[in-house]
Amino acid sequence: MLGTVLHGPRDVRCEEVPEPNILHPTDAIIRLSATCICGSDLWPFRGLNEVKSPMKMGHEYCGIVEEVGSAVRSVAPGQFVVGSFCISDNTCPHCRFGFQSSCVQREFMSGAQAPLARVPLADGTLVATAEVPADDLIPSLLATSDVLGTGWYAADAARVRPGSTVVVVGDGAVGLMAVLAAKQMEAGRIVAMSRHKTRQDLALEYGATDIVSERGEAGVARIKELTDSVGADAVLECVGTKESMAQALECARPGSMIGYVGVPHGVVFDGQQLFFSQKGLLGGPAPVRRFLPHLMDLVLERKINPGKVFDLELPLSDVAEGYHAMDERRAIKTLLRV
Amino acid sequence: MLGTVLHGPRDVRCEEVPEPNILHPTDAIIRLSATCICGSDLWPFRGLNEVKSPMKMGHEYCGIVEEVGSAVRSVAPGQFVVGSFCISDNTCPHCRFGFQSSCVQREFMSGAQAPLARVPLADGTLVATAEVPADDLIPSLLATSDVLGTGWYAADAARVRPGSTVVVVGDGAVGLMAVLAAKQMEAGRIVAMSRHKTRQDLALEYGATDIVSERGEAGVARIKELTDSVGADAVLECVGTKESMAQALECARPGSMIGYVGVPHGVVFDGQQLFFSQKGLLGGPAPVRRFLPHLMDLVLERKINPGKVFDLELPLSDVAEGYHAMDERRAIKTLLRV
Repeated sequence: MLGTVLHGPRDVRCEEVPEPNILHPTDAIIRLSATCICGSDLWPFRGLNEVKSPMKMGHEYCGIVEEVGSAVRSVAPGQFVVGSFCISDNTCPHCRFGFQSSCVQREFMSGAQAPLARVPLADGTLVATAEVPADDLIPSLLATSDVLGTGWYAADAARVRPGSTVVVVGDGAVGLMAVLAAKQMEAGRIVAMSRHKTRQDLALEYGATDIVSERGEAGVARIKELTDSVGADAVLECVGTKESMAQALECARPGSMIGYVGVPHGVVFDGQQLFFSQKGLLGGPAPVRRFLPHLMDLVLERKINPGKVFDLELPLSDVAEGYHAMDERRAIKTLLRV
Repeated sequence: MLGTVLHGPRDVRCEEVPEPNILHPTDAIIRLSATCICGSDLWPFRGLNEVKSPMKMGHEYCGIVEEVGSAVRSVAPGQFVVGSFCISDNTCPHCRFGFQSSCVQREFMSGAQAPLARVPLADGTLVATAEVPADDLIPSLLATSDVLGTGWYAADAARVRPGSTVVVVGDGAVGLMAVLAAKQMEAGRIVAMSRHKTRQDLALEYGATDIVSERGEAGVARIKELTDSVGADAVLECVGTKESMAQALECARPGSMIGYVGVPHGVVFDGQQLFFSQKGLLGGPAPVRRFLPHLMDLVLERKINPGKVFDLELPLSDVAEGYHAMDERRAIKTLLRV
């Protein structure tokens, strides 16, 4: 079959790869309804994470179960499923604590930018729908697999409450999903920090009440102005750079939490600074599995439309163009038809 | 009057100082019923914080109001009061958010190791009792001013819940108070990390269910053993060194919070490490004022006895010995009679 392989910086190819097989009795093979490119795929694509050997790309997925291993009980061939990018057994103490992304058997999904994918720990990882959903819901269901679940976790970790004033740092796909999540959690005010018209528009559609296009000190000044010098009740950091984290810290009010979901690159926190400013932190790979049933329900009931975050749709064979478009910020997020 | 002044490393003196006066209409002057030495007083005493000019010491206090400024409304001469070591107006947005230790008018109390002290922002800072309390309650009421409130905040920031498994790092006075707080919050298991028999005994008396005397890797291994390799639901970091923070991070389970109240010295957090281990952080100078009415009630109803943490009692004139005894760990905490 065709699959997506990263060979080195900016060298991503759609090429012939072996079809996946059941390797463990707890595996499932799914035929993808659609797949997509994640902002985090750009780190190795840009050469910021080293690529030592060819990497099978893709960790966001939904589709029809094709085959299951002998130990799989909760899903069966023919069912439509969504799974998290974090593989988890959903029974260990960390899973039961709601942190499936720290499952004792954690693996990170890979190879999903392809027509077929192997999902380990299928019982713990996959959530099936009662029926095969309508085609037009596929993008939104695909979004629950990572990008929406990750934005949702940012809001959860930052403890967004009804009425909260929320600042979202980052207008990538995750940031836009964080806006949607804050809206669903009934935040009173949602400030999206974004400099790009199309992203600003989508943020507003997803529930942002204010747009701040300034960055750095000017951005912080705008947030202070909007909040009567108080700062935000909750900050959702959806980028992962030193600059974006500094922005998040400066925008947060004392006693608030920063939910951070962008993989930190070059971020270091000074203990004493953090202490005296009383900014709280909770982040990490999102425990999407915790939120998945609820998020899938919201999509199936057509209460949310996270799939609008895909503003470029390509056949799998054009996957390289999908990476380049996101890298050059010509696209927010690329959906791949397989 | 006599007061306590730090002139340089290990040079603390009880010497003649001017009596405090009302400087602002919002001030009160109180006559201290007792005062004490804080673990944080040892940082400058040990020369770890620079002392540029003679420092008036003491920020924990309770006593009888002697005089109030013209704008003070909520306390009157003759009343018994306790105040936080953090001066706050208790009306600004940060105070109303429960973070009085980040009050827009925040000041840190000083000069309380003396018979009289000036308390700025008396209305926001001081809490009066209905009657002058019995003498034997004075040590416990004094404890609410900082050490108990700080241990309580560690437990609050770490989100101790009924049934939680809690690890307390540090067996100083704050650590022991953190044990008491976790017990009051109905933690199911409270592990005190302590190597000193007298402190272990007091921890057990305050509600610790387990004592771990190992430190470093061996300490972490013991915690893992006690928690079936899971780690603690909540970790209360009550020291502030690099080593104690590393211990706290290693003992915390993914998704848990570390409430840290020891002023960090040389502590740096790596963003990516914190991210992938999913350890949450919230710390800072404790917003004691938030907890003060509740803590004072618990003392007045004789439900808790935090005053037992004072294992050395000296007249103010012997304050230097109090510092030395704590520095050499001969005393947990020194109460000063003024």
